[in-house]
Amino acid sequence: MTDAPSPRRAAILGAAGTIGQHFARLLDRHPEISVEALVGTSRTRGRRLADVWQLSESPPGALAGLRIRERTPAALARAGIEIVFSGLPSGTAGPFESELARRGIDVFTNASDHRMDPTVPLLVPEVNPDHLDLLARRAGGSGLLVADPNCSAAGLVVALRPIWTIVAPKEVHVATYQALSGAGFPGIASLSIADNVVPYIAQEEEKVARESQRMLGSLRRGRVAPSRIPFSVQCVRVGVRDGHLEAVTLVARRRPALSELLSAWGSFDPLRGEALPTAPHPPVVVRREPDRPQPIHDRWAGEPARARGMAVSVGRVRWEPPYLRFFVLSHNAVRGGAGGSVLNAELAIARGLVGRGRARR
Amino acid sequence: MTDAPSPRRAAILGAAGTIGQHFARLLDRHPEISVEALVGTSRTRGRRLADVWQLSESPPGALAGLRIRERTPAALARAGIEIVFSGLPSGTAGPFESELARRGIDVFTNASDHRMDPTVPLLVPEVNPDHLDLLARRAGGSGLLVADPNCSAAGLVVALRPIWTIVAPKEVHVATYQALSGAGFPGIASLSIADNVVPYIAQEEEKVARESQRMLGSLRRGRVAPSRIPFSVQCVRVGVRDGHLEAVTLVARRRPALSELLSAWGSFDPLRGEALPTAPHPPVVVRREPDRPQPIHDRWAGEPARARGMAVSVGRVRWEPPYLRFFVLSHNAVRGGAGGSVLNAELAIARGLVGRGRARR
Amino acid sequence: MTDAPSPRRAAILGAAGTIGQHFARLLDRHPEISVEALVGTSRTRGRRLADVWQLSESPPGALAGLRIRERTPAALARAGIEIVFSGLPSGTAGPFESELARRGIDVFTNASDHRMDPTVPLLVPEVNPDHLDLLARRAGGSGLLVADPNCSAAGLVVALRPIWTIVAPKEVHVATYQALSGAGFPGIASLSIADNVVPYIAQEEEKVARESQRMLGSLRRGRVAPSRIPFSVQCVRVGVRDGHLEAVTLVARRRPALSELLSAWGSFDPLRGEALPTAPHPPVVVRREPDRPQPIHDRWAGEPARARGMAVSVGRVRWEPPYLRFFVLSHNAVRGGAGGSVLNAELAIARGLVGRGRARR
Amino acid sequence: MTDAPSPRRAAILGAAGTIGQHFARLLDRHPEISVEALVGTSRTRGRRLADVWQLSESPPGALAGLRIRERTPAALARAGIEIVFSGLPSGTAGPFESELARRGIDVFTNASDHRMDPTVPLLVPEVNPDHLDLLARRAGGSGLLVADPNCSAAGLVVALRPIWTIVAPKEVHVATYQALSGAGFPGIASLSIADNVVPYIAQEEEKVARESQRMLGSLRRGRVAPSRIPFSVQCVRVGVRDGHLEAVTLVARRRPALSELLSAWGSFDPLRGEALPTAPHPPVVVRREPDRPQPIHDRWAGEPARARGMAVSVGRVRWEPPYLRFFVLSHNAVRGGAGGSVLNAELAIARGLVGRGRARR
Repeated sequence: MTDAPSPRRAAILGAAGTIGQHFARLLDRHPEISVEALVGTSRTRGRRLADVWQLSESPPGALAGLRIRERTPAALARAGIEIVFSGLPSGTAGPFESELARRGIDVFTNASDHRMDPTVPLLVPEVNPDHLDLLARRAGGSGLLVADPNCSAAGLVVALRPIWTIVAPKEVHVATYQALSGAGFPGIASLSIADNVVPYIAQEEEKVARESQRMLGSLRRGRVAPSRIPFSVQCVRVGVRDGHLEAVTLVARRRPALSELLSAWGSFDPLRGEALPTAPHPPVVVRREPDRPQPIHDRWAGEPARARGMAVSVGRVRWEPPYLRFFVLSHNAVRGGAGGSVLNAELAIARGLVGRGRARR
Repeated sequence: MTDAPSPRRAAILGAAGTIGQHFARLLDRHPEISVEALVGTSRTRGRRLADVWQLSESPPGALAGLRIRERTPAALARAGIEIVFSGLPSGTAGPFESELARRGIDVFTNASDHRMDPTVPLLVPEVNPDHLDLLARRAGGSGLLVADPNCSAAGLVVALRPIWTIVAPKEVHVATYQALSGAGFPGIASLSIADNVVPYIAQEEEKVARESQRMLGSLRRGRVAPSRIPFSVQCVRVGVRDGHLEAVTLVARRRPALSELLSAWGSFDPLRGEALPTAPHPPVVVRREPDRPQPIHDRWAGEPARARGMAVSVGRVRWEPPYLRFFVLSHNAVRGGAGGSVLNAELAIARGLVGRGRARR
Repeated sequence: MTDAPSPRRAAILGAAGTIGQHFARLLDRHPEISVEALVGTSRTRGRRLADVWQLSESPPGALAGLRIRERTPAALARAGIEIVFSGLPSGTAGPFESELARRGIDVFTNASDHRMDPTVPLLVPEVNPDHLDLLARRAGGSGLLVADPNCSAAGLVVALRPIWTIVAPKEVHVATYQALSGAGFPGIASLSIADNVVPYIAQEEEKVARESQRMLGSLRRGRVAPSRIPFSVQCVRVGVRDGHLEAVTLVARRRPALSELLSAWGSFDPLRGEALPTAPHPPVVVRREPDRPQPIHDRWAGEPARARGMAVSVGRVRWEPPYLRFFVLSHNAVRGGAGGSVLNAELAIARGLVGRGRARR
Repeated sequence: MTDAPSPRRAAILGAAGTIGQHFARLLDRHPEISVEALVGTSRTRGRRLADVWQLSESPPGALAGLRIRERTPAALARAGIEIVFSGLPSGTAGPFESELARRGIDVFTNASDHRMDPTVPLLVPEVNPDHLDLLARRAGGSGLLVADPNCSAAGLVVALRPIWTIVAPKEVHVATYQALSGAGFPGIASLSIADNVVPYIAQEEEKVARESQRMLGSLRRGRVAPSRIPFSVQCVRVGVRDGHLEAVTLVARRRPALSELLSAWGSFDPLRGEALPTAPHPPVVVRREPDRPQPIHDRWAGEPARARGMAVSVGRVRWEPPYLRFFVLSHNAVRGGAGGSVLNAELAIARGLVGRGRARR
């Protein structure tokens, strides 16, 4: 690229956590974004990223030596940070992110605090890119605030979007098989999950239902009208490192042919025309084997290389009207975590939305 | 017991397998049944039960030294065997069991071959004891043939029975978290399930639906009219040794109070008056903790001691009409396997049905 | 027993922890000891034992409803507590236990703080009962202080004792495969151990070496002269719930026949004559199968019923002089934890040592 | 490369197995070797590599569509195959490989059959490249036969080589923590290893000892004189997918400084000067953290990209003379399997040894 703009200066919040480390991994040598700061807490400040690294993937060479700092929103603004990726825990995240946005910094967050705010797009680029229009309602001079959804909702809505109107479900039933990394580190104790599964994840079922309904809702007069289709969700933790599997049953109003469904999934690629580096093409991989998708084989689905873990795998499609049953698998910390926000940022950059808050100040 | 009848002479088919070994464990020192023969294949004949033992529980002292033999139905009849417990694999089981019954031996089977036969009760004593009446249609002189259901269906119907008419569901949605032992030994390869879950168990979803509908059906003019309520089932293998967990959602027609549901489960004990040694009292244990039932804690539920693993645990009851969601857990190889057939035999003995075929010959 | 003395009034320290809960389980309906108080911290005070229960075994019926209290040594003394079982974490344990002993209460502890004290027997009844003589050096009027060893050392010394002089090792090499419960609850994070093993347990290798040498040492003029045989130990955490496996290699000075070794293990039962309720007979179970001992099959070894988990399993004995290799398995939280201290208390009671401190005051 | 020779035409034996699939993965787009044939059994013939794929890594694009065939040595020779990589099971491998060599094809094998043959180098290029001289004793016209060692021996000797003469051990004690994939597919049953470890792998301990001694032996008059240092080995299977960990204790004759040992490991890179595509630089990665190496973090060690999984990680070095204790970790199916033979082939090609048999015929 001869005319490539200089990369945006970015910071990662919660850099010592699971999502923060996935941000570091995904932003390593990113063509449009340059990580300049790793922000942590008093517990981790001063330590190099490599020293707190917990993922089984290797720490990114370029960032491994960067030290984690404690930083206020003001300090980040002074340091010329333009974009912040937030892997903060919910609760802590909300006020910190609001303050960053007030200072004109564009925030892409994996935390749940702002997901239901009327002026915050809860965004999955393949699913509801039009929800970016909500940003028009934000105060002038303020930065963007864009949220990615709950780790189970993210994969689910990518799988539902291509068939949503074809099937016209009147009910959605979901049971999840959620990976350990979804709870972050240290997360669940080994004695709680060894030779066991745990049918409880605090507030998860409500989040999956509510966030999916919001993302599948429509934009009317600057507001999101959530889908009214009921989502009945049951969430279970299983002893798998990464990759959330979900058993989905749609009760359908319509009766498309099975081939029509498979073709809708197979040809789905709404971001085809946009050069988003982290976008997987195709975003939905349809598995034809009888026993797929499986975490061990499919969690890293996604091409090109930069989009590994961003594709959603769909399989075991059984269509016995009115019941459409299938399984969805996605990498909870990539598609359902850090990767979701990176893709959101790429879309916002492509749409020319990034940097406006700071420009106007 | 001063007047106790002499115990029935019993044989175990498939004694080297997982279900066969649970039969041996459960029948150890049984007050009404005495195991006289362990029947295996050419692969295991001549070996002592202790030598082929695979369960993590210890082999039963009294039977540990008994040797496994190859035996024809004729040889078993000649040896004076009155009751056979069958842990044979499906396919092999059918003709062998039929031949045993023809010779007047009463057969209690865990195999699937005869489960849908019109003259074979598919029986869970707490759920459909009246289905024993199907036996009246069998030919004179023949032995009983009584089947217990699929390991996932067994726990499910015990949990559904107490609330079935109160809720009057119009749909049942089930997603399972099934243990490794459900596949027997050697079953699934460690590399297939380590750090993984597998969303496929051959023919399982159909069995759970069909068998549950049969057991919840009603007896009309000597035939079972299966329930027509649709069961939409998704089955997944998880890396747990024992204990099938199931996420259940009922779409209800009625609107009972939550307390009415809990009370229906809590007071359910239809076998209370009958002195069946392996019957758990109560058969449904309602867990009030937010995160139960769990395999590691609840798979061995059941009192008295002889009924360990026979109780079904229900928990996380969420009632947002019309959706009633809850989890069920039961020990797949006890309540959902060998224990089911032992309880069936105990009920048949209590009803005076055992031994009739031989008496008439 | 017509003349049975009234049971000793006991308290459990650290009742909410893994070891504390095993104490509660093992002391349930104990013929000589009656648990009157469960002592915890501000975090757990007021909660019933059943509410904080974490073990996969069921909570003991008689104690399940007892509430955890915060109690000072003085309060325990005022409440007439005669014996204390301590499952406190090391560091906290030391001063609290010393204060209890000063007040005349007999303390049996699983904590490491006092294990190397010259006047504290580091005791395994089958191994070094004579070390109880160290107690003679304690101040008049003070209670006993008796420690059980590190969870890996406990099983090891029981396996070594019967062959120690026969083999006369000049070196002992040990590599461990230690269970998750050895770290207590919450212990190790699931993400740290799923699909992994961790070759590091803080200070464990030093403890196993030093404590084994002390227990295998000899008592000379009121002091323990530790064994000078070097122990080279490597400790690894593996993803097993309960049961520490150890690979042991002895470099032998002597050349006994293999049969002599097996017979030494098989006939070892130094507590045969003493009626200690929790003592397993035999204490060493020799497995002849090629692939035993294994945690899943052997961790609960031990008869009679009250001694389940107290026997040590030895197997895969390979004797190629000068190298004697074998595996040892023992339940880390029973033989290597709470059960060790219960057995110590039973031995002290049998020897008439319990209650002396209080008697003299 | 302007003058690159055309790549060697290669076949993979046992292509449907775990090692065969790693061969396919490692040889994908190899600069010197081109896979032309996948050889399997009647069970898998006709199936595409992608259809039998079992590894968690993705099947290699270029070979995924290639079909598995049954092929005799004669057919392979007729098809112009120059190099064969053998992932055959031991027993089957021996005669088949001998016949291939007789026909002038160069064989690099992971099977154990020929490992102790006097004319077959048991080779790890960083450890004993001079053993290639054994090939000089083979009959004219015959192809090479080069074996890689047992999966546990491979990592061990790479870790031992740099310090072997510095420490001058008089004994080597090894306890292993071996991954599931070491048993191939299906390998060990999930019920045998879930919540368990298994202290038995058939013939493994003998192989590790004998093969290590051979590789560390010296070449004298065209024969290998094995090292006489005793290896005392204990082998255990643990529930880890990939990566063998080994606890090593050397009883040293010499007393080098710890820094000298670390420096010997750190500077070890005997293949530095040779352009072998799959050679890792450095071959030994020394970990300084207290709790490394670990399978989840270190099994894929090795740079450049083509050498992923070929480096051996050493850590927790504790030097208390005469005992040197440390842990070694290596990827059993890469360094200890297919990758070992690929590196052997690369060394043989670089030395001009490949193709001689065929040239002379």
